[in-house]
Amino acid sequence: MSIEIPEGSEVKVEKNSALYEGRAMPSPEGVLIIKLGNGYNVGLKLDPNLKILEIKERARKKPIKRLVVEKMGGKTIAILGTGGTIASYVDYTTGAVHPTRSTGELLNYIPEIRDVANVRAKILFSVLSEDLGPKHWKILAKEVKKEFEEGCRGVVISHGTDTMSFTAAGLAFMLRELSGPVILTGAQRSADRPSSDGFLNLLYSTRAALTDLGEVVVAMHDTLSDDRITLHRACRVRKMHTSARGAFKSIDADPIGYVNSDRVYLREHDKKGDNTIIDTRMDEKVGILYSYPGLDYDVFEAFSERHNGIVIAGTGLGHCPDAILPGIKMAIDKGKAVVMTSQCIHGKVNLAVYSRGRELLKAGIIACDLLPEVAMIKLGWVLGHTKDQEKIGEMMRKEYTHEFGGRRFIDG
Amino acid sequence: MSIEIPEGSEVKVEKNSALYEGRAMPSPEGVLIIKLGNGYNVGLKLDPNLKILEIKERARKKPIKRLVVEKMGGKTIAILGTGGTIASYVDYTTGAVHPTRSTGELLNYIPEIRDVANVRAKILFSVLSEDLGPKHWKILAKEVKKEFEEGCRGVVISHGTDTMSFTAAGLAFMLRELSGPVILTGAQRSADRPSSDGFLNLLYSTRAALTDLGEVVVAMHDTLSDDRITLHRACRVRKMHTSARGAFKSIDADPIGYVNSDRVYLREHDKKGDNTIIDTRMDEKVGILYSYPGLDYDVFEAFSERHNGIVIAGTGLGHCPDAILPGIKMAIDKGKAVVMTSQCIHGKVNLAVYSRGRELLKAGIIACDLLPEVAMIKLGWVLGHTKDQEKIGEMMRKEYTHEFGGRRFIDG
Repeated sequence: MSIEIPEGSEVKVEKNSALYEGRAMPSPEGVLIIKLGNGYNVGLKLDPNLKILEIKERARKKPIKRLVVEKMGGKTIAILGTGGTIASYVDYTTGAVHPTRSTGELLNYIPEIRDVANVRAKILFSVLSEDLGPKHWKILAKEVKKEFEEGCRGVVISHGTDTMSFTAAGLAFMLRELSGPVILTGAQRSADRPSSDGFLNLLYSTRAALTDLGEVVVAMHDTLSDDRITLHRACRVRKMHTSARGAFKSIDADPIGYVNSDRVYLREHDKKGDNTIIDTRMDEKVGILYSYPGLDYDVFEAFSERHNGIVIAGTGLGHCPDAILPGIKMAIDKGKAVVMTSQCIHGKVNLAVYSRGRELLKAGIIACDLLPEVAMIKLGWVLGHTKDQEKIGEMMRKEYTHEFGGRRFIDG
Repeated sequence: MSIEIPEGSEVKVEKNSALYEGRAMPSPEGVLIIKLGNGYNVGLKLDPNLKILEIKERARKKPIKRLVVEKMGGKTIAILGTGGTIASYVDYTTGAVHPTRSTGELLNYIPEIRDVANVRAKILFSVLSEDLGPKHWKILAKEVKKEFEEGCRGVVISHGTDTMSFTAAGLAFMLRELSGPVILTGAQRSADRPSSDGFLNLLYSTRAALTDLGEVVVAMHDTLSDDRITLHRACRVRKMHTSARGAFKSIDADPIGYVNSDRVYLREHDKKGDNTIIDTRMDEKVGILYSYPGLDYDVFEAFSERHNGIVIAGTGLGHCPDAILPGIKMAIDKGKAVVMTSQCIHGKVNLAVYSRGRELLKAGIIACDLLPEVAMIKLGWVLGHTKDQEKIGEMMRKEYTHEFGGRRFIDG
């Protein structure tokens, strides 16, 4: 005799005198994995000692392209899916994680979301985030505008964590004005793994999406604790750990707020306006070159030839080997833009302190207190607007979306 | 009438009823800068209100190529100078820092060092650290061996902070056995600036150089406080701030010890042996390629063509855009080595979790729990020993000098 236990159903089972109650998760052959009330999973072997006391099947919806969760008279938010761990599942035959769970399916696992708002869910892409780039950011920016125009109060974007901060920064530059919050969120652990962070991140993001925020933010755990998510400004956040749930950190800036079970807390922020204005002009030929001992003219030249804008992740205050100086000068003479940032991640870029920095400034390099990733995206956006070097420098030094650290820039 | 106040002399002056006592520092025209007992500098205008009560000129030594500070019957350590802020001075006409102060001169400012050990000081290079590379590491390794053979108990290397961790890692691989400690130290602020960290770093490094440590370590402040320096293992340390005195941090590893005014504390460490064995074979054609959205086949190919070993600073657990996969395969087919690390800095690299990682492993990429910088140096050292791909993978996965983080490696 075999009993069918549908994924997602509520089960109550007994094994060796212990009682287990929770949600049935995707399980390998011969095993039943239950997500318990405390968020952790337990795996039970399907043998005669396992007594199934109750199976309450949840009304499962087929994965669909657009899912509307209605709440009578409530506010509506949009969830735009792009793929990533939050929308992925573990293939138990190989152990690998695949990006194929739909946002619609995911919502079935978070019924609590219906108490917060009506949800319009839409899958835009279903890719690993390392494959998302400027082309996807442009589509996302347009979709965000559309959702606001169709009456959504806020937009949540579910996204892989690898490049979430890149996409957030891309959107922050492309969305010049916002008529509601844009919240990027995701998961470091897939939904069917013990204590996945995806549920809380998505649920609390929908609450942040109902505030008066007029900025793009990243909403993720920033500690191990599973009762609060932190809201980071798009251009000051960085993934600082490969696997921890608290991987995302605001760098040289305070987080803009947090969400816990009681409230959404926001410090001083840009308020949402009446319109959403987008400006997606972006030169995609920009890249980050990491400085290292031995980096030479030949490598720099090959890299700069293939880009219109080059962001150097320099050492210390913003330095690079002597050997590439002629290459930097030549690239600038050819009309390219070269921007200096620091691989230290923390601290200001300052080319006025050491003789190397002064040589770089003389060559026409632009020094910016930006994370290397953000500098690349800003440079792409600036180059989408002008190729005039003076104007490029001016725009790079102007703050558009809270992208600078504590102090603006020092370059001479 | 004019009074000559030599740099470095001990002065006692009075101005507006306040008394100032300390060391005369290099000062701009018309100003006297005094380093006070608390480590901070005060600048006093040279006007009739300034009363000079006392000038005790310190016996100044001319900058010399080799300086021996003798202490009767004591132990001897070597200080090898390479340049950097610790050996630099501020040009007050421009405000820029130049790398020209000699280690001999510097020692005159730290008389306390004579109470610790006899010092043999030698200037090897006088360059900004961003211009130091494998060629310099080889010379340093040989000089370290020579100093030990000539009876020195320990070697302190004064070094610019920008690439200090690169040089430390280079030496850690090149010095296969050590008959004494090798301590790299430097300064984030030049010696004539208020509260420079260079004095304490150098003084306490000489004390660490007298221990039974048989490893290469970086000795720097790691907090703002000026009473303790931290000893970091060469391959787990990273400069994490452009300007703060506490810029150096051990990543995913505990520091190996610290030095305060009372003691040198060392946790479990490799003990010094009878001999210093060097192995400086290193392929210099290695580099770090930072992954970013838009990184394409063409850029990867141009970069890989110019290197024998390519370390990718990937996103998340060790990922990169789909577009460069064919390039990675081709590079490996051509006999090059491609290593995956993470730009997150913290956390393990793990290519077994996501489908992209598994594709990368299938292509022959080597996954390593190494900081990108350390992976590059290790790869150069490994390629200096073998070009056989199986052997390269084996050596990259073997631990030689405590280079791995908490857990070793996971690649399938």
